[in-house]
Amino acid sequence: MAITVVGSVAFDSIETPAGRRERCLGGAATYFSLAASFFTDVRVIAVVGEDFGPEQEAVFHAHNIGTRGIEHTAGKSFFWEGSYLDNLNEAKTRSTELNVFASFDPKLPDAYRDSEFLFLANIDPVLQRRVREQMPNVKLVAGDTMNYWIKDHKPALLAMLKRLDVLLINDTETRMLGGNSNLVKAARAVMELGPRLLVVKHGEYGATLFHKSPPKGGSAERAFKAPGFPLEEVVDPTGAGDSFAGGFFGYVASQPELTPGTLRRAMFYGSVMGSFACERFGTERLEQLTRAEIDERFNQFRELTHLD
Amino acid sequence: MAITVVGSVAFDSIETPAGRRERCLGGAATYFSLAASFFTDVRVIAVVGEDFGPEQEAVFHAHNIGTRGIEHTAGKSFFWEGSYLDNLNEAKTRSTELNVFASFDPKLPDAYRDSEFLFLANIDPVLQRRVREQMPNVKLVAGDTMNYWIKDHKPALLAMLKRLDVLLINDTETRMLGGNSNLVKAARAVMELGPRLLVVKHGEYGATLFHKSPPKGGSAERAFKAPGFPLEEVVDPTGAGDSFAGGFFGYVASQPELTPGTLRRAMFYGSVMGSFACERFGTERLEQLTRAEIDERFNQFRELTHLD
Repeated sequence: MAITVVGSVAFDSIETPAGRRERCLGGAATYFSLAASFFTDVRVIAVVGEDFGPEQEAVFHAHNIGTRGIEHTAGKSFFWEGSYLDNLNEAKTRSTELNVFASFDPKLPDAYRDSEFLFLANIDPVLQRRVREQMPNVKLVAGDTMNYWIKDHKPALLAMLKRLDVLLINDTETRMLGGNSNLVKAARAVMELGPRLLVVKHGEYGATLFHKSPPKGGSAERAFKAPGFPLEEVVDPTGAGDSFAGGFFGYVASQPELTPGTLRRAMFYGSVMGSFACERFGTERLEQLTRAEIDERFNQFRELTHLD
Repeated sequence: MAITVVGSVAFDSIETPAGRRERCLGGAATYFSLAASFFTDVRVIAVVGEDFGPEQEAVFHAHNIGTRGIEHTAGKSFFWEGSYLDNLNEAKTRSTELNVFASFDPKLPDAYRDSEFLFLANIDPVLQRRVREQMPNVKLVAGDTMNYWIKDHKPALLAMLKRLDVLLINDTETRMLGGNSNLVKAARAVMELGPRLLVVKHGEYGATLFHKSPPKGGSAERAFKAPGFPLEEVVDPTGAGDSFAGGFFGYVASQPELTPGTLRRAMFYGSVMGSFACERFGTERLEQLTRAEIDERFNQFRELTHLD
């Protein structure tokens, strides 16, 4: 079933110990939709400038991703420049230019209205909520946020969280939003704010899924862990978290029911897609990936974690 | 089959957000042997001072741990004082007094000579090697070390590593010893120095087992991951790494063969024992633990990580 995703489609300049790329295609909605496209239909809502041309559009079309909701407007696309030279696990932002994103007013195309799944990538929670309200009948809503919104836009964020089923954030964001240095207690506090499922992403150490209440038909256990994949070379971690979200939510949307087993496999697919994203610069690896490679790595994840 | 362990038996004063304890029983060999004692016979080689009395000795005897190799000498036992007030994942050392440990010359009692397993806890690699040479025919030797020996005692450490089957160290130590910021590449470089198995401990994120060559009868995969347990309260992380080693090596020593399955379960038991160690101050939790609780948590680890 189809996912509509709202978020940034952007250009990134990235420097890592492996090299440098200028103005490659990036943005949370781009990574998310590429990753999710291996599992289900995806449709994007975003805004781009005149620098976004047929070459960029072709990347989406090659993966059968709906682009009717990508609004083209005068000016330049969102631009981010970051460096991982000091720390491969955390980007140092050198420059952020909102450009056309500054006046983004997301509009839902009619062709997207039958989407049963909605992903609110990391943007202003006011905009996330606006899209959420245009799709009152979706089956499942997942979303992301970041420390900036937690710190300086708390009321808008809290209003958005009330309408969210699944939140995907990292360790630091969980501790900040949950107001507790203990991750389990922080996770519980975050779920009290709305989402009944919380995926905490640990970077190279994988991710943990927390349930507000024990899953139906599942055990009393309220957590599930997907490992990080032991990569021999991390070329560029940009978009790994968004790719995780795409793999996770794409797999969920491809399944008939949200069983405990579906969620567990979704966690693995999330971690699989996050690991691929790091293997080359920008979206290069995701663009060339095949479903067979994804399933092969999924099996490697099983080998990596299962006793028998 | 029995394990002989050489390392520190000490007194620790510990401060964490949960409170403070003065001069409680500690030391790597203490945590290791308590954790391993739930799986197999354990015998300790250490040196203690006059402050180590019947009360401390009773802790070992209650777990059937051999103490004939604990040498009593004039003076005070090794003492460490540390604080986790700033960071629960890393102790800030306030004071270290070597005391009787400064002139430790480990001697192997005759009663220990039939031990088939040897664990060299984190002490001067010169002493580790001296014990290793007294037990040339053991079936398997595992050991630990730390940044201090890697940085300032490299030649002695390298000589010791050549005689080691399994090394258990943390992320930072692996990167430092392997000379590579990528963990997989660093792990491979470390195994080139001697050990054919490397367990990299990630603290709250669990641990990864690396094999120098694919395990016999196992898959082509060369890594296995045990998760960290999502603890709602970390009271005191002191000794968690040594307890991991005790659970890991204790389980290995209790099994007839070192199969891939044995190693995988050993990783889980390691992580189980490490998680228990954090639940109360010092050795309090390990002292009161039962095998039934251990196996219950082992099953929770399976729930936490397995797809089906």
